[in-house]
Amino acid sequence: MKRPDPQQNGGEAFVNCDGTVAEAPRLKKIQFADQKLEFNKRPTKIGRRSLSRSISQSSTDSYSSAASYTDSSDDETSPRDKQQKNSKGNADFCIKNIKQADFGRREIEIAEQEMPALMALRKRAQGEKPLAGAKIVGCTHITAQTAVLMETLSALGAQCRWAACNIYSTQNEVAAALAEGGFSVFAWKGESEDDFWWCIDRCVNVEGWQPNMILDDGGDLTHWIYKKYPNMFKKIKGIVEESVTGVHRLYQLSKAGKLCVPAMNVNDSVTKQKFDNLYCCRESILDGLKRTTDVMFGGKQVVVCGYGEVGKGCSAALKAMGSIVYVTEIDPICALQACMDGFRLVKLNEVIRQVDIVITCTGNKNVVVREYMDRMKNGCIVCNMGHSNTEIDVASLRTPELTWERVRSQVDHVIWPDGKRIVLLAEGRLLNLSCSTVPTFVLSITATTQALALIELYNAPEGRYKQDVYLLPKKMDGGAATRSGFSLSRQNGVFVFFVL
Amino acid sequence: MKRPDPQQNGGEAFVNCDGTVAEAPRLKKIQFADQKLEFNKRPTKIGRRSLSRSISQSSTDSYSSAASYTDSSDDETSPRDKQQKNSKGNADFCIKNIKQADFGRREIEIAEQEMPALMALRKRAQGEKPLAGAKIVGCTHITAQTAVLMETLSALGAQCRWAACNIYSTQNEVAAALAEGGFSVFAWKGESEDDFWWCIDRCVNVEGWQPNMILDDGGDLTHWIYKKYPNMFKKIKGIVEESVTGVHRLYQLSKAGKLCVPAMNVNDSVTKQKFDNLYCCRESILDGLKRTTDVMFGGKQVVVCGYGEVGKGCSAALKAMGSIVYVTEIDPICALQACMDGFRLVKLNEVIRQVDIVITCTGNKNVVVREYMDRMKNGCIVCNMGHSNTEIDVASLRTPELTWERVRSQVDHVIWPDGKRIVLLAEGRLLNLSCSTVPTFVLSITATTQALALIELYNAPEGRYKQDVYLLPKKMDGGAATRSGFSLSRQNGVFVFFVL
Amino acid sequence: MKRPDPQQNGGEAFVNCDGTVAEAPRLKKIQFADQKLEFNKRPTKIGRRSLSRSISQSSTDSYSSAASYTDSSDDETSPRDKQQKNSKGNADFCIKNIKQADFGRREIEIAEQEMPALMALRKRAQGEKPLAGAKIVGCTHITAQTAVLMETLSALGAQCRWAACNIYSTQNEVAAALAEGGFSVFAWKGESEDDFWWCIDRCVNVEGWQPNMILDDGGDLTHWIYKKYPNMFKKIKGIVEESVTGVHRLYQLSKAGKLCVPAMNVNDSVTKQKFDNLYCCRESILDGLKRTTDVMFGGKQVVVCGYGEVGKGCSAALKAMGSIVYVTEIDPICALQACMDGFRLVKLNEVIRQVDIVITCTGNKNVVVREYMDRMKNGCIVCNMGHSNTEIDVASLRTPELTWERVRSQVDHVIWPDGKRIVLLAEGRLLNLSCSTVPTFVLSITATTQALALIELYNAPEGRYKQDVYLLPKKMDGGAATRSGFSLSRQNGVFVFFVL
Amino acid sequence: MKRPDPQQNGGEAFVNCDGTVAEAPRLKKIQFADQKLEFNKRPTKIGRRSLSRSISQSSTDSYSSAASYTDSSDDETSPRDKQQKNSKGNADFCIKNIKQADFGRREIEIAEQEMPALMALRKRAQGEKPLAGAKIVGCTHITAQTAVLMETLSALGAQCRWAACNIYSTQNEVAAALAEGGFSVFAWKGESEDDFWWCIDRCVNVEGWQPNMILDDGGDLTHWIYKKYPNMFKKIKGIVEESVTGVHRLYQLSKAGKLCVPAMNVNDSVTKQKFDNLYCCRESILDGLKRTTDVMFGGKQVVVCGYGEVGKGCSAALKAMGSIVYVTEIDPICALQACMDGFRLVKLNEVIRQVDIVITCTGNKNVVVREYMDRMKNGCIVCNMGHSNTEIDVASLRTPELTWERVRSQVDHVIWPDGKRIVLLAEGRLLNLSCSTVPTFVLSITATTQALALIELYNAPEGRYKQDVYLLPKKMDGGAATRSGFSLSRQNGVFVFFVL
Repeated sequence: MKRPDPQQNGGEAFVNCDGTVAEAPRLKKIQFADQKLEFNKRPTKIGRRSLSRSISQSSTDSYSSAASYTDSSDDETSPRDKQQKNSKGNADFCIKNIKQADFGRREIEIAEQEMPALMALRKRAQGEKPLAGAKIVGCTHITAQTAVLMETLSALGAQCRWAACNIYSTQNEVAAALAEGGFSVFAWKGESEDDFWWCIDRCVNVEGWQPNMILDDGGDLTHWIYKKYPNMFKKIKGIVEESVTGVHRLYQLSKAGKLCVPAMNVNDSVTKQKFDNLYCCRESILDGLKRTTDVMFGGKQVVVCGYGEVGKGCSAALKAMGSIVYVTEIDPICALQACMDGFRLVKLNEVIRQVDIVITCTGNKNVVVREYMDRMKNGCIVCNMGHSNTEIDVASLRTPELTWERVRSQVDHVIWPDGKRIVLLAEGRLLNLSCSTVPTFVLSITATTQALALIELYNAPEGRYKQDVYLLPKKMDGGAATRSGFSLSRQNGVFVFFVL
Repeated sequence: MKRPDPQQNGGEAFVNCDGTVAEAPRLKKIQFADQKLEFNKRPTKIGRRSLSRSISQSSTDSYSSAASYTDSSDDETSPRDKQQKNSKGNADFCIKNIKQADFGRREIEIAEQEMPALMALRKRAQGEKPLAGAKIVGCTHITAQTAVLMETLSALGAQCRWAACNIYSTQNEVAAALAEGGFSVFAWKGESEDDFWWCIDRCVNVEGWQPNMILDDGGDLTHWIYKKYPNMFKKIKGIVEESVTGVHRLYQLSKAGKLCVPAMNVNDSVTKQKFDNLYCCRESILDGLKRTTDVMFGGKQVVVCGYGEVGKGCSAALKAMGSIVYVTEIDPICALQACMDGFRLVKLNEVIRQVDIVITCTGNKNVVVREYMDRMKNGCIVCNMGHSNTEIDVASLRTPELTWERVRSQVDHVIWPDGKRIVLLAEGRLLNLSCSTVPTFVLSITATTQALALIELYNAPEGRYKQDVYLLPKKMDGGAATRSGFSLSRQNGVFVFFVL
Repeated sequence: MKRPDPQQNGGEAFVNCDGTVAEAPRLKKIQFADQKLEFNKRPTKIGRRSLSRSISQSSTDSYSSAASYTDSSDDETSPRDKQQKNSKGNADFCIKNIKQADFGRREIEIAEQEMPALMALRKRAQGEKPLAGAKIVGCTHITAQTAVLMETLSALGAQCRWAACNIYSTQNEVAAALAEGGFSVFAWKGESEDDFWWCIDRCVNVEGWQPNMILDDGGDLTHWIYKKYPNMFKKIKGIVEESVTGVHRLYQLSKAGKLCVPAMNVNDSVTKQKFDNLYCCRESILDGLKRTTDVMFGGKQVVVCGYGEVGKGCSAALKAMGSIVYVTEIDPICALQACMDGFRLVKLNEVIRQVDIVITCTGNKNVVVREYMDRMKNGCIVCNMGHSNTEIDVASLRTPELTWERVRSQVDHVIWPDGKRIVLLAEGRLLNLSCSTVPTFVLSITATTQALALIELYNAPEGRYKQDVYLLPKKMDGGAATRSGFSLSRQNGVFVFFVL
Repeated sequence: MKRPDPQQNGGEAFVNCDGTVAEAPRLKKIQFADQKLEFNKRPTKIGRRSLSRSISQSSTDSYSSAASYTDSSDDETSPRDKQQKNSKGNADFCIKNIKQADFGRREIEIAEQEMPALMALRKRAQGEKPLAGAKIVGCTHITAQTAVLMETLSALGAQCRWAACNIYSTQNEVAAALAEGGFSVFAWKGESEDDFWWCIDRCVNVEGWQPNMILDDGGDLTHWIYKKYPNMFKKIKGIVEESVTGVHRLYQLSKAGKLCVPAMNVNDSVTKQKFDNLYCCRESILDGLKRTTDVMFGGKQVVVCGYGEVGKGCSAALKAMGSIVYVTEIDPICALQACMDGFRLVKLNEVIRQVDIVITCTGNKNVVVREYMDRMKNGCIVCNMGHSNTEIDVASLRTPELTWERVRSQVDHVIWPDGKRIVLLAEGRLLNLSCSTVPTFVLSITATTQALALIELYNAPEGRYKQDVYLLPKKMDGGAATRSGFSLSRQNGVFVFFVL
């Protein structure tokens, strides 16, 4: 969801395991062109940045707020046109600016503090090098957290080549630090679509080096290899996929009998789900609202639409800060929970006139429609914490009688003819991805799981995994663990992941 | 679990559907005899009461604290030896004292206030009489809440005969009110084992009346009919069973091919589980501790063993009251939740010397063993909220060097040679059943479910249900509902169950 | 407030310090007679009990729920007509039944567990006997907690004679234990007004013994000595007074120049205020509601009238249990706090139709008037946690068209002609005093303060205190402390009072 | 505290009311020189910015995170050397860049949303122009919130000239919007000390215009007029002062008999205190930590030093986010509250090795000393929420064996020889001022109070106020209000300030 998704237009072709092509992926280009057209229609002074952000459907520049400062004065030369070398003379990378390496190193060091499980894994398994001989090609967000993962994989014996899974999420200074450290990284913030696929290609299309493991986030890398280099799968031992979309594509391949290697779905582990939803959103709803609006929570009236894990996190956090929280929910079991947790269950139209903040967490479409927005009070803040950008009917606000004013990054005032304005955050996209950061600790859980999945697939004896999609063995998903597994543990009264 | 369970000794015989007996239930009597021997060994002044309480594994006299007041001066004549009639001359019942009917009526009226769903069902379905012709024999706790259920069943057209599923839990004044109202009730507080089966027999062994529906809680009534009157099943349309144990027995019957009629498992509905564990325990831990010890919660150090639903409820409640709560947990997912909820994870021996209150909620055996109790500080309160009476190793405290002092009902001081004493509640049995009340609202959910299950089984067309154990159709378990179903609804911002 | 208050009729006479009488206290008797008349007008089967409870304005029998069980079978002979001796042959006491001493001893031992500061004081100061030679006459509630205080005073060297400050609050078995232990106690549960003053007189009018310290709760003992034995003040070193009313009377005496000895106001210490209001009410609102109604809190709508310390405690507790809490408040600063704490501020009439529970905590009169009660929904629970019994206009419910039904102790159903009923608790008196217990830990704070005040006054050098009313020196009120003082301390991470 | 404070060096001279000078303020210059020397000693690449920040003792650039983005590419010409006019040709101002006016206008519009009381005052009093004829000279932070205040004063009839009270806190784009709107503003971000006084002088030293009201924040403006233009006080009707320091200076003047006009202390109103401490810090502790470290709160161990209002807010917020919070406190009453609120009381050295975050809120000096920092674990975050920058002994960290690394704005890693690093925020200055924003709603309360104080002083009849320091009349401080007063009100269940 965070990258261009060729699946969305349907009719996607995949190369079969034997190398034959089932259907040409022609629609893909058209789709991209369409998207561009749509985005270009919007008048914006922010230009290219706005475009890329719209394409990415989410901004991740907040992964490091510091990063953006240093970027602003960067030159506009495309990294593809630059000749750069690291201090050891290595030039097998393509990034924005190798000179930012020192700053990136600091970001990585900060991240290491909050990734105890990965650091423990690095320490523990360093001697036995469980990834010796592994040649991993990766396509994920290039952030400080990913850097900790890559350096861990390297410490365990692997060689890595890496591209970004999102054209906007790369932390340039982190990419610089990785390049300086000898990693072949091909990524920068603000890639064009062409850049995007070029970078991926540079990772796999290299003389004298062929990957035997894939770490993917979204399925684009996997897709590219299927399309361009299907024979590579003969040497590939497995795919580890992190995203909902990528997992979905793998299941489709598997169903169609076209999955050539075992794949590991790390998206659906219990711990990841809990962290991504309940625990993470409980903190990021506050963070996202503060960074965009500086609103005081105490005494505010808030309606939270939906009381799943995300809604539970949002409601609890705002209640704790002294807000008066109403909940809308149609599922009776969740409604029961909201009620027993002390939230007043309402229908949206009962409270829409009086609330100061509206938060959608339903996963449904058009939860907040124009009619409701017409009735909101002046200054009402509207944002989305759900799983898509469709919960708020933002399109219905793009009508001539309403004026849009971009007042800050990620903050629009939509102004009615009578002067009433509502405060729309992130244009209805996910607030926690657009306007707050995901705590490193949360990312650390995914990263650790990815590392373990790679180790497991790489070392699994013949026959343990077939050409299918697997969940991480339970022993590794927060439970008792084997040699390469990990477990939740308590040290000094505190919960940590640790490696057996 | 709340009644003698013949299953526990294994080898139980059941009459087959065709009336043949598979194996004689001889072991049963031996079991009871054994239990008596064991209990009689304990020196106690409370005599018969203590015996019955031990057998019942739980006291439910706290269902109505008021009830016990009126009992104290009662005579000791067995109800079986009394001749009583209600004001209309009816004598088809056997209870403690028909004169308590007025007081029981008040208890029923109080209960009605907190059972909106059942009252709504009564009102809604009264016209159509969906239970017209139903002859229901029941065996449940005889409490004000059951009375509301029985009067609802009657209002919907059913005839009822009822016995108690527990020799100690009957509210005598409620039984009196039911008898005065024309119900054939056979139950009193403090039945002997012989009384227990005699009462059940009086419900079913009656000339000119044969049940066509069974409502059971624990399986004893079902067991009795299987054993004594297997032919009755020819007319019986179904069994509704509420308890874990009874459901377990039904599944065994089903597996063995001996289940003659459809049965409905109302124990495992989502709403019931949530209410019985999380929501109910959150309140009853405070209630149970206060009623027994009057302890102030603020500033106390508490360790909660186990962080399942029960542990979550207990921890949250005590934290909210200003206690400092530690949690022990071995399951990593639950440990993770405890940690993210802000509880310090410990091993019991790390904190056992310093805590003021120890609460077990694990469902395991011997969580709190003698060694720990030796190290507790003077005045430490020890109680059990888990699912059995085995979490605290109470047997290990029955040694010569320790002195037991019964300081209040349900409260023992166990005194060490050096004068240190710990405060043991309910002899390690379930605190919430022994020392607090189950809110009527919680019971109302079970009762409503029971009523709906009876209606469903009684009215189901031929073939919908076979000789198997069913869960309540989802449409009734908190979801959208059919004619006879019910649903969670929001009225004026508040959650209620309502009947479609 | 918890005892007959002669001040309320005004015009009270006091003996001057020189022994002259300023005005005869004739009005007093009339007042009592009036009260009786009023109470007798109410038809009640409970008879004498109801009377005494009305006079006392609060029931404290819940100080020990256990106590009431043992009383029920007691004979009706007045203690004044009984001849009793303790096991050592001492007969200088008058109580209900010396045979209950063992049971009382257990209650005292339970109390000791929760009174660490007093036990520490006992231990610490036992060697130096700071009260050697002190002859203390006391008039307080006779409860297990008071017993711990008395036995501490005794351990520190004092002789004690004691009466009850309330005709209904005495725990008979505790009085028995004290008598058995050699204390001259004159008190039982259910004294008549004549008994009340007879008991006080027996404490002071004794040959060969004259008190030199007074410990009073309400001022009746002080009043009696002023009236009857004014010369006693020549030997009295000081008065320690605990109650609001008693303190008020002392200030009046002081203002009128008639206070003959120094007096210590222990009512207004910061710690006592915080415990009596915020911390104690936070727990007792839940306890009181549960014991009387067994109501489930989760999902209930509650309105709390008033957001002072008591309202803050009630609101926080119910919110934590999953209730939806509304607050009414007229003071803007408190309203601000309610708002910032996340409670919706309302006017009572906005929510009166929808709430399940109404709690008054304002300290004002007629907060809940008949008009509101007319509009409450069926089953609404109404109770008072404020500082008087006037917040709910109970008198307005005593009209012919409404039916009162006493359904449990302290619980009345008031029934409207259309069948609607509201649940009135404690007839509008203080719920926490009538229907829950005050945790021993809370009482322990008052008791420790009383002991320290006695020590301070008894040992103070000439001239430190004049004939005036003093607050406990700050060094003793939770601060740094002198030889006889105490301080809050942290032991093993937990707050305790301890004695220097 | 947020500006250079000449008082701190003592011996400050003031011009008497009659214009004679008591003592020459020579020390002042020396003091500034000293400060510079001290700050210059610190090696820093950030140069001038670092200097000014150190002088100001707090950074407020976070008032608008957006603002800083636009600044980065600004030229370095001093505003004093620029010639700028607004669109109407007016040039009576001195700011960074008039072209930023549009952007500043948006910030002001955002602020208006959260300042309902001020907007209501503007609307309500616009007709009567209670400030007609008022000539107000102001010296405060120049932020969007101040702009709303200034435009309100203008709407009520006043003329305004304004300087900044802090050399670093000015939002340049807001200053631009004010200049564009016709206000005579003299302020920019990053003034030198010389600039600072030059700007103040430009506000008062203007031909044909003489102020009759002073609105000051810190006392520098007042000080300047005393020093340079003492005769101006003849026409001045009063001073409104907001800061602790400024109020302190006024009281000193008053004590010395040198206060020439009435002054209003708006710092010590109850509502301001509550908002500035409890409510504001509850939110800003989370905000400040997130913006600087992106740390996840769930499961973290935190020690909060001090449990006053600030500590209460911090502790409650982090507890609600799932942190395990310890509290240190020496005041017994506050310790009692911490304990009853469920926090474990510790001594700092008991937990210093295990905690993840250390927060100081004591108001004392050297709470966290080097010895503690030596024992902290790797990655421990250390920050200050107290009232000064002295709680953390930062100086002790400036030793040769420790390496400082600036990893982000306001974030330093201090690295021990063994590689351990602690994360020091804002160099020990106030986290909430340096690294988070103060919600507009909080500022709105101060601003409203300032406006009301100006109205009151300006309109007060002769003799109501003498040459003394006054608190705002109670009727205005959250209470019932007169013509010019305001009150807390509830509208639709929500608390707002409103103007009578």
